[in-house]
Amino acid sequence: MPQVGIFMGSLSDEETMRPCTEVLEQLGISYLFTVSSAHRTPERTEHLVDKLEKEGCQVFICAAGMAAHLAGAVAARTLKPVLGVPITASKLGGMDALLATVMMPPGYPVGTVALDKAGAKNAAWLAAQIIALQDAKVAAKLTAAREEFKAQVIKSAEDLEARMAK
Amino acid sequence: MPQVGIFMGSLSDEETMRPCTEVLEQLGISYLFTVSSAHRTPERTEHLVDKLEKEGCQVFICAAGMAAHLAGAVAARTLKPVLGVPITASKLGGMDALLATVMMPPGYPVGTVALDKAGAKNAAWLAAQIIALQDAKVAAKLTAAREEFKAQVIKSAEDLEARMAK
Amino acid sequence: MPQVGIFMGSLSDEETMRPCTEVLEQLGISYLFTVSSAHRTPERTEHLVDKLEKEGCQVFICAAGMAAHLAGAVAARTLKPVLGVPITASKLGGMDALLATVMMPPGYPVGTVALDKAGAKNAAWLAAQIIALQDAKVAAKLTAAREEFKAQVIKSAEDLEARMAK
Amino acid sequence: MPQVGIFMGSLSDEETMRPCTEVLEQLGISYLFTVSSAHRTPERTEHLVDKLEKEGCQVFICAAGMAAHLAGAVAARTLKPVLGVPITASKLGGMDALLATVMMPPGYPVGTVALDKAGAKNAAWLAAQIIALQDAKVAAKLTAAREEFKAQVIKSAEDLEARMAK
Amino acid sequence: MPQVGIFMGSLSDEETMRPCTEVLEQLGISYLFTVSSAHRTPERTEHLVDKLEKEGCQVFICAAGMAAHLAGAVAARTLKPVLGVPITASKLGGMDALLATVMMPPGYPVGTVALDKAGAKNAAWLAAQIIALQDAKVAAKLTAAREEFKAQVIKSAEDLEARMAK
Amino acid sequence: MPQVGIFMGSLSDEETMRPCTEVLEQLGISYLFTVSSAHRTPERTEHLVDKLEKEGCQVFICAAGMAAHLAGAVAARTLKPVLGVPITASKLGGMDALLATVMMPPGYPVGTVALDKAGAKNAAWLAAQIIALQDAKVAAKLTAAREEFKAQVIKSAEDLEARMAK
Amino acid sequence: MPQVGIFMGSLSDEETMRPCTEVLEQLGISYLFTVSSAHRTPERTEHLVDKLEKEGCQVFICAAGMAAHLAGAVAARTLKPVLGVPITASKLGGMDALLATVMMPPGYPVGTVALDKAGAKNAAWLAAQIIALQDAKVAAKLTAAREEFKAQVIKSAEDLEARMAK
Amino acid sequence: MPQVGIFMGSLSDEETMRPCTEVLEQLGISYLFTVSSAHRTPERTEHLVDKLEKEGCQVFICAAGMAAHLAGAVAARTLKPVLGVPITASKLGGMDALLATVMMPPGYPVGTVALDKAGAKNAAWLAAQIIALQDAKVAAKLTAAREEFKAQVIKSAEDLEARMAK
Repeated sequence: MPQVGIFMGSLSDEETMRPCTEVLEQLGISYLFTVSSAHRTPERTEHLVDKLEKEGCQVFICAAGMAAHLAGAVAARTLKPVLGVPITASKLGGMDALLATVMMPPGYPVGTVALDKAGAKNAAWLAAQIIALQDAKVAAKLTAAREEFKAQVIKSAEDLEARMAK
Repeated sequence: MPQVGIFMGSLSDEETMRPCTEVLEQLGISYLFTVSSAHRTPERTEHLVDKLEKEGCQVFICAAGMAAHLAGAVAARTLKPVLGVPITASKLGGMDALLATVMMPPGYPVGTVALDKAGAKNAAWLAAQIIALQDAKVAAKLTAAREEFKAQVIKSAEDLEARMAK
Repeated sequence: MPQVGIFMGSLSDEETMRPCTEVLEQLGISYLFTVSSAHRTPERTEHLVDKLEKEGCQVFICAAGMAAHLAGAVAARTLKPVLGVPITASKLGGMDALLATVMMPPGYPVGTVALDKAGAKNAAWLAAQIIALQDAKVAAKLTAAREEFKAQVIKSAEDLEARMAK
Repeated sequence: MPQVGIFMGSLSDEETMRPCTEVLEQLGISYLFTVSSAHRTPERTEHLVDKLEKEGCQVFICAAGMAAHLAGAVAARTLKPVLGVPITASKLGGMDALLATVMMPPGYPVGTVALDKAGAKNAAWLAAQIIALQDAKVAAKLTAAREEFKAQVIKSAEDLEARMAK
Repeated sequence: MPQVGIFMGSLSDEETMRPCTEVLEQLGISYLFTVSSAHRTPERTEHLVDKLEKEGCQVFICAAGMAAHLAGAVAARTLKPVLGVPITASKLGGMDALLATVMMPPGYPVGTVALDKAGAKNAAWLAAQIIALQDAKVAAKLTAAREEFKAQVIKSAEDLEARMAK
Repeated sequence: MPQVGIFMGSLSDEETMRPCTEVLEQLGISYLFTVSSAHRTPERTEHLVDKLEKEGCQVFICAAGMAAHLAGAVAARTLKPVLGVPITASKLGGMDALLATVMMPPGYPVGTVALDKAGAKNAAWLAAQIIALQDAKVAAKLTAAREEFKAQVIKSAEDLEARMAK
Repeated sequence: MPQVGIFMGSLSDEETMRPCTEVLEQLGISYLFTVSSAHRTPERTEHLVDKLEKEGCQVFICAAGMAAHLAGAVAARTLKPVLGVPITASKLGGMDALLATVMMPPGYPVGTVALDKAGAKNAAWLAAQIIALQDAKVAAKLTAAREEFKAQVIKSAEDLEARMAK
Repeated sequence: MPQVGIFMGSLSDEETMRPCTEVLEQLGISYLFTVSSAHRTPERTEHLVDKLEKEGCQVFICAAGMAAHLAGAVAARTLKPVLGVPITASKLGGMDALLATVMMPPGYPVGTVALDKAGAKNAAWLAAQIIALQDAKVAAKLTAAREEFKAQVIKSAEDLEARMAK
């Protein structure tokens, strides 16, 4: 029973979206990671959304490039929170995907995160933060993860300062 | 029996799209001018596309602002040519609607025209040029219209030169 | 006990953010609507986040313009979901606020919605969708609201088609 | 007798435009693929447009980079539908070619598609959709192609899900 | 016998281009100020360029908005220097006209100046600087004009400092 | 003896720059507020920089629009810190002035602040922060001003919360 | 006696500007190709401008990246035509250099050409077109060069069509 | 006792920021070069700012990419001058970091310099120019450095001219 449904518009986004599944695994959140397209397979997309929703899916994460309509198409079908990851897939630096994902009309929000791999990770984090509202285990893992982030920064600062002191 | 189906994402785009219907009327092309939303009424949009297509509709014109998904949603449903009019509906100067309309993935083209009223007119002209491939009357009207454009420029040039000569 | 904490960086954003509180009220969600600044009152912002979190606040909505750091500052303080509304407050068309809100580093997501009033509404809708995961009443209201959206589009389409038929 | 005339502003765009000819071949549409420049060979461009039009050419596809004037120059010469493919040929990410192609004045539309190879393909698809209005064979091939697209997505989803299940 | 040919793509640019004629008059340079369109009247544009060139025209100034092709079309027809004034005619802030004017391919330069009225003036100044290479009277007037600019700045500085001193 | 030299490229920027002088007055910092242009009066600009520097001027603030070269020209002449205020003076939303001010080459920095009035204020604040390094009175006033900012935010929050409670 | 003075802001632009000198050599125009900086060597820049002007230099070409002030600094010093080549020298895609070069204030025009190598060539072509107003030999070479351009396009079209016919 | 505190948001910016420390060393200015994050380690950032300030730190330099909040977070904590270096860390060409750094609200200025390595150097130069207001040795080194810059340009010009003369 996946708690999170992750849809990519194209298999070519798989590498970019890998950090999303890695974060979810690290946080002990189940997910379905699949390909479905707003334009090529609209019925499949709708069907999957309905099926996942019935199975108890709590959050949808949609990643797409160019005129990135996938997150919006999913947001039109469900009332579960939908998070969008804009992918850089043209020479426009991702601006096309970012604007096509974030500028949704009233009533059909897509919670948009950063471009590419940073966004892939953050969609997972944000999904986890949503799930943690009802799941103390996930909340504890998030707290621990932030402590780890903090420790990493301090460690890298110490290393740098040590190198500088030489 | 409408030859062209014109969809706006919101009634607030009506004034911007009026020049589109005016051009079609001038060229003797029948049309349906309506509101349907990719997100608010996806079923209605699909149903209308199917219905219009069965009635013989040749071209779809879709106008939308912000993360303008409407033209793409129609393009995913039909194999008739779909033309997109990006509408300025945020402070981003229409760049959001332009990129969300034009950057469609392979196999699902949207023939995108200029922003706002200029685009509203040009979607009508381009639809007429497509229809004229099989309709000599429309072709003749297009030829006449271009002569008229030419005459207007020459007239405005003469007026200006006359004023300058004073 | 507010379920949602709404922070604006400046009182001048009040009118832009009003639609946010209106949507929450319509959906029966309690909220605190206040002013707090990432730069002018960082301690107050931190204190309010902690206080609201203890009182059971589920979602934070942060609205700011220009180098919009408020949502990020809140996201650094809490593990509750943080939603960001970029506000147009310079001549750059809101691009400054959009990028400063959405491009957050891994681990500190801000679920960013559209610019200005559309975003104010959508932050409320997305907060409600998150709360509805555990609150069937809110879920029912969301479902009803979407039916209403659909009805409005159909109504405006009928009106337009009636006007066109004259 | 070419049904589609494909003009590139420069031979350096050949590789980018190859997918355009491949799609047309796949769909059984005849074409002329050549180089002609709005600025270097304006007379040749005009002559070719006239010649192709007389030979029954139905659609023009024009690809150009930078201040991409070629599609506009062709649109000024013919009343056949003109489709524009903006090519990335400077460090501006294709924004120069996109805006110079799409922002045409009223009466002289260029149906603009996505940047670079995605646009090369989509210009072919859109040309085919226009031709299919009068050619049932092409229409059938388009329908089959879309089924193929759908099958590819489903196949790639199955592969991914299989890999994930391991 | 006009020394400078000023072409606008549309009569609607007249007010924006007025400062151009005013500067030329101030500098004693003869000009033809007219309307001609790259798309609506390509033959007229070509004919006018040839005619003016034969009459001794030294510089062409072309003003256009949106996908501003006019300067490029003139540059393709003549070897006299062509100056381009991008006009803001859409919601894109003039970026469309600027890029469509300046990004010309090798061998067909358009000396592009600033957007709108500032550019209208500067096209006149640059034309005058070109003519002054062979015309000592114009050169003298340019030198005097720059002294006047300097005096104006100093005057406005004195006025401001006087106001501040109160 | 002015501690800060404020240069505007044009008197038309006076209203935009007024908040700069107001902040300096509030903080008890003396200044010269004048007009000088990088292009119209380069000698005057150089002369003023030298003169002010000799009189003990500590910081230069330069405000200019479009291809805003003024701050750079001053930075090339002095080793005192130079702060740049980009002014919106074209339809490009201030992006022209921002990039022309901030993207200085190594060795000739311009400390750039926000666009327009917000930047006018912040140039004054930053100048004051620089002067406060050696002037305890200014430092005290800055500390007090920040307390005042904080108080204003809290006051506006209380007012809003009071209004909301009704 | 150089007819054209070519200034680069930095030696690192040499490769980008090589096509400029090649075009001038091809057209038999003498030039000085040197490095001078608006900020690092303002006096040298001024001195060189004066010296070249006295020696009969007709046109200045200035190439610079980032906040490209060089062309403006030269334009402020001379009344000879100044042409600007924006160079891509940051991650901003050349937009910084383009806007800093083209958006000059009234009275101090810089005739701006395309970015990078295309612009390097076009600055040479435009300089030659200006010189050709008084130099029939250069005019003849320009006419021949355009014939050559035309021939190249036709040749490349023939080659492509021949390859396609196989 | 560091005179300058240099904070990077992430160790991955170390190579980009190295030129900053090199310039400070060349000018004999002491510094602390460390990692601290606005979001991952807000307390550490605040603590470090307070500690450095007490130890006599005069200027803070903050480098960050994407939604670069670090400089703003430091500026909210101290009244010492804060300089910001935007780092290109996404496909958006650094525009995200630039706008998030420079568009600070009134009272909390960040003196922003160019993107990436050029900015890293210029933050050091600007810090040195601020410190030089009270430190004649640094002032002398700055003057010498500028002479060196000048000499380098002249040297590279001579080399180029010598090569050209061959």
